[in-house]
Amino acid sequence: MQPGKGRKGKSFKQRLVLKSTLAKETISEFLGTFIMIVLGCGSVAQAILSRGHLGGIVTINVGFAMAVVMAIYVTGGVSGGHINPAVSFAMCLFGRMKWFKFPFYVGAQFLGAFVGAAALFGIYYDGLMSFAGGKLLIVGENATAHIFATYPAPYLSLTNAFADQVVATMFLLMIVFAIFDSRNLGVPKGLEPIAIGLLIIVISSSLGLNSGCAMNPARDLSPRLFTALAGWGFEVFTAGNNFWWIPVVGPLVGAVIGGLIYVLVIEIHHPDPDPDFETEQTEDKTDKYELSVIM
Amino acid sequence: MQPGKGRKGKSFKQRLVLKSTLAKETISEFLGTFIMIVLGCGSVAQAILSRGHLGGIVTINVGFAMAVVMAIYVTGGVSGGHINPAVSFAMCLFGRMKWFKFPFYVGAQFLGAFVGAAALFGIYYDGLMSFAGGKLLIVGENATAHIFATYPAPYLSLTNAFADQVVATMFLLMIVFAIFDSRNLGVPKGLEPIAIGLLIIVISSSLGLNSGCAMNPARDLSPRLFTALAGWGFEVFTAGNNFWWIPVVGPLVGAVIGGLIYVLVIEIHHPDPDPDFETEQTEDKTDKYELSVIM
Amino acid sequence: MQPGKGRKGKSFKQRLVLKSTLAKETISEFLGTFIMIVLGCGSVAQAILSRGHLGGIVTINVGFAMAVVMAIYVTGGVSGGHINPAVSFAMCLFGRMKWFKFPFYVGAQFLGAFVGAAALFGIYYDGLMSFAGGKLLIVGENATAHIFATYPAPYLSLTNAFADQVVATMFLLMIVFAIFDSRNLGVPKGLEPIAIGLLIIVISSSLGLNSGCAMNPARDLSPRLFTALAGWGFEVFTAGNNFWWIPVVGPLVGAVIGGLIYVLVIEIHHPDPDPDFETEQTEDKTDKYELSVIM
Amino acid sequence: MQPGKGRKGKSFKQRLVLKSTLAKETISEFLGTFIMIVLGCGSVAQAILSRGHLGGIVTINVGFAMAVVMAIYVTGGVSGGHINPAVSFAMCLFGRMKWFKFPFYVGAQFLGAFVGAAALFGIYYDGLMSFAGGKLLIVGENATAHIFATYPAPYLSLTNAFADQVVATMFLLMIVFAIFDSRNLGVPKGLEPIAIGLLIIVISSSLGLNSGCAMNPARDLSPRLFTALAGWGFEVFTAGNNFWWIPVVGPLVGAVIGGLIYVLVIEIHHPDPDPDFETEQTEDKTDKYELSVIM
Repeated sequence: MQPGKGRKGKSFKQRLVLKSTLAKETISEFLGTFIMIVLGCGSVAQAILSRGHLGGIVTINVGFAMAVVMAIYVTGGVSGGHINPAVSFAMCLFGRMKWFKFPFYVGAQFLGAFVGAAALFGIYYDGLMSFAGGKLLIVGENATAHIFATYPAPYLSLTNAFADQVVATMFLLMIVFAIFDSRNLGVPKGLEPIAIGLLIIVISSSLGLNSGCAMNPARDLSPRLFTALAGWGFEVFTAGNNFWWIPVVGPLVGAVIGGLIYVLVIEIHHPDPDPDFETEQTEDKTDKYELSVIM
Repeated sequence: MQPGKGRKGKSFKQRLVLKSTLAKETISEFLGTFIMIVLGCGSVAQAILSRGHLGGIVTINVGFAMAVVMAIYVTGGVSGGHINPAVSFAMCLFGRMKWFKFPFYVGAQFLGAFVGAAALFGIYYDGLMSFAGGKLLIVGENATAHIFATYPAPYLSLTNAFADQVVATMFLLMIVFAIFDSRNLGVPKGLEPIAIGLLIIVISSSLGLNSGCAMNPARDLSPRLFTALAGWGFEVFTAGNNFWWIPVVGPLVGAVIGGLIYVLVIEIHHPDPDPDFETEQTEDKTDKYELSVIM
Repeated sequence: MQPGKGRKGKSFKQRLVLKSTLAKETISEFLGTFIMIVLGCGSVAQAILSRGHLGGIVTINVGFAMAVVMAIYVTGGVSGGHINPAVSFAMCLFGRMKWFKFPFYVGAQFLGAFVGAAALFGIYYDGLMSFAGGKLLIVGENATAHIFATYPAPYLSLTNAFADQVVATMFLLMIVFAIFDSRNLGVPKGLEPIAIGLLIIVISSSLGLNSGCAMNPARDLSPRLFTALAGWGFEVFTAGNNFWWIPVVGPLVGAVIGGLIYVLVIEIHHPDPDPDFETEQTEDKTDKYELSVIM
Repeated sequence: MQPGKGRKGKSFKQRLVLKSTLAKETISEFLGTFIMIVLGCGSVAQAILSRGHLGGIVTINVGFAMAVVMAIYVTGGVSGGHINPAVSFAMCLFGRMKWFKFPFYVGAQFLGAFVGAAALFGIYYDGLMSFAGGKLLIVGENATAHIFATYPAPYLSLTNAFADQVVATMFLLMIVFAIFDSRNLGVPKGLEPIAIGLLIIVISSSLGLNSGCAMNPARDLSPRLFTALAGWGFEVFTAGNNFWWIPVVGPLVGAVIGGLIYVLVIEIHHPDPDPDFETEQTEDKTDKYELSVIM
């Protein structure tokens, strides 16, 4: 603004600045999902590679939850910090985001999760190589594939597995909608990410036993693909009775149900309806207006 | 408001909107108690069904507390987020809620807790079935009934058990009253649920050994009834020297004592009395006015 | 205010209301210290009486810290929530409280801690009786005296023990002064108790090994006296080379040093001095004015 | 201000007050780093000296993180609470602090960490002496050197070790920049230290396995030097294939990369650029203006 102050720098910076809101949002979702995978799956890695000495269920649950918190702090003001295709899907469906943005968000999320898995693989390369004598295993006590993607408990049927992912993501979205509903109790502005972190701690402490509580297609599928390519082999897709598609499809179904329950049971009954939300039942018309929502 | 925008959706939505405040509050309490049971008892389930590998006292205490936090965020702005008949009882007794609402609140809480127990049973159906070779047991190392309801420690007499529930709920209500007393220190608006979560963490860490610190008739009786019907048998009621009534009656007594202590020791001495609270000692006249309190 | 509304109740209430600020503060400190001991020492009791199955260092450190948090939420708006003679001593010495209040505060704290220890003894009476076959022991694997008071590690000399209590309390007060210094970073109003809770977590995680980190004469001496009378015997005073006086005297010394360091290194250098604090170096004149401080 | 009130005290105080902002900041950074080392490394000490009975990965990660939180609350309003040369380096490089302050900040940090290590040595002197029969060891199950400085895992190559410190500090700075970016989501004022504490918890839970996640030249080098002098010997520098320089150099590189990623991916694209930040690309001109930033 002031002439003569860092002209060359400013013009260089001006060339870097993204004019398109969509481009900013896409790169933001990429970065957020990248952060979540490195720090979140990293918490799993530390527990497994130390054979429980430097990590366990507490550090995994807190670590993954706080990884999400930090990813939202980095990206929330730009792209809303979805970092989860199921969240983006629900946001579009309930009129909180335009549909044309959906493929960009989801593409960035899958790509960010893949690059995050690769970065984590690099950071713990020596540890992974020494853990099982250079072998990258999917099953057994020296398995490391579950650092990256989730696998079902031995007792779990496919039906129960699908219900598990639907229900867990249902709770996630139902409560995320409550956290951002300013006409309800209202988390103070700027603390929503921490409330979401606490939410992820409780869901992964209570509904994590069946299959590790992915609740996020990008968080699960991209790292799984990475492991398939990086040396664990494509058995990562056939393992658990071809479990891989369940944390992809289940969360999308659960997100819709969770959002619907919150809207039908709580939101539409608020005495003073916010005009931005009044057409949220007309799900096919959401691209007529732009809602700048946080999540 | 604006004509031509989603007319059919709006009219459909208008038919769904509850006109009655009491109906909204009832359905809200149902949903809140449902959330608390699935995520709270779910935290116990994960610890027990994994035989301590994916859960323990820390994840149980934090998980149950955060389940309450999330239930309050979902319901607090609508029904105050009581999710506990003992809380509703104290609220009526101290003039913070009208008595005619009491049966609706409590009915919704008992029903929500029952449905929540059933939902948790469904989510962990495969896990429960494989845990003890298809048997649903109440005692022994393969017991699973204490996922749903609380049972006394072997050493505990009935007198001590009753005192335990009275005292624990006394602390719960005394401090909940402090958390919502804006003339005291004052938890910032929107963070009260998290303060209550921390309160539940400390009570279940300190007073949880005797009998698991139910402090809530709905949280305990409804899941116990569910287990009786779902296959554990009616020994869930006779176990522990007919312990079942203690987490039902004890919390009601404790809630009254806890509220009374706070009011007598702290609240009535505040220098500038809030007129809304000045008749709180005339307990039989509370239905003359409507107080829209959070809890 | 409005005539005809609860007349009889109001007059009854009016008879209960304390006119004296000092009486309110004294009863508030009694209640706060009582809460801290029941919930704080209760967290130790749960870990010890369950032999580590339902508690450990994490639940003890978090439980005791949150017990302090809750005690401050209950009493902070009335008496400042000192619940610690060392804190009251430093407050008087640094001109944040009048000296004539000191004996009332400290008396209430010692009494509240004694009654809290008795209440905890009652709550866990059956558990204590069954733990060691009816014996109340001070040393050995069945010891229970350290539920109530602190005892030194076997390796600890008296010199190191005294330094330990001085240094731990020094950090406590130094950082408490920072938390309430509005001209520094500033914890948001109403969240100071939680910041203090986090402070107690870190001090008891880092400086708790030598002798359990009492940092509070009332928290240690009153429960110790209770155990002496309740059946553990007066060896609770001679144990650890007459250790009992160290958590009484050490915290008083440490509190002064900690407050002094904060004032000298940080507070007096603030660019815009708050007039209320400008005479804080004239320690013998603090009773000339009344400072209504939180802590 | 008011005459006749504590005259002698005021004049004594006036002599103590530091006129120079730089002097205040230097002494503040000294105190902050001192606090971090005593309470942070103290958390490691408690876990190691109790052989895991009174501490473990949870208390270490939470304890070190909260030690940083408390150090920032004490110093944040004066010097910004860097307590880390890598943070000060990034702040200078991105125009948030003048370069001439850099040596004062870094000198104070190294000195504060050294004195903190010495104080911790004193507090746990008896414990350290009794732990290994009076020996101060660097390797083996009775090692205590890693209480003070970090050492690499046996599997770790120097390349991976360097990448580890770069990446961990990259995440630290990237997210610290987000936490203080008021045009992003925005942590509420006064809660930034707690957000940083949660960040340190997740990084040390996820990226702490390789070499303990120092991310701070002063936190690692000064205590290492202290151990060399205090009796562990200069093998603390040669251990781990001369690992000592990696937590010194790696964090400086990582801090620059982390800051750069945040600025390039998120900050420069904000729609309404804050004039204070517009020359942040002209890194060699940052000493032309003074930015009063928190961190």
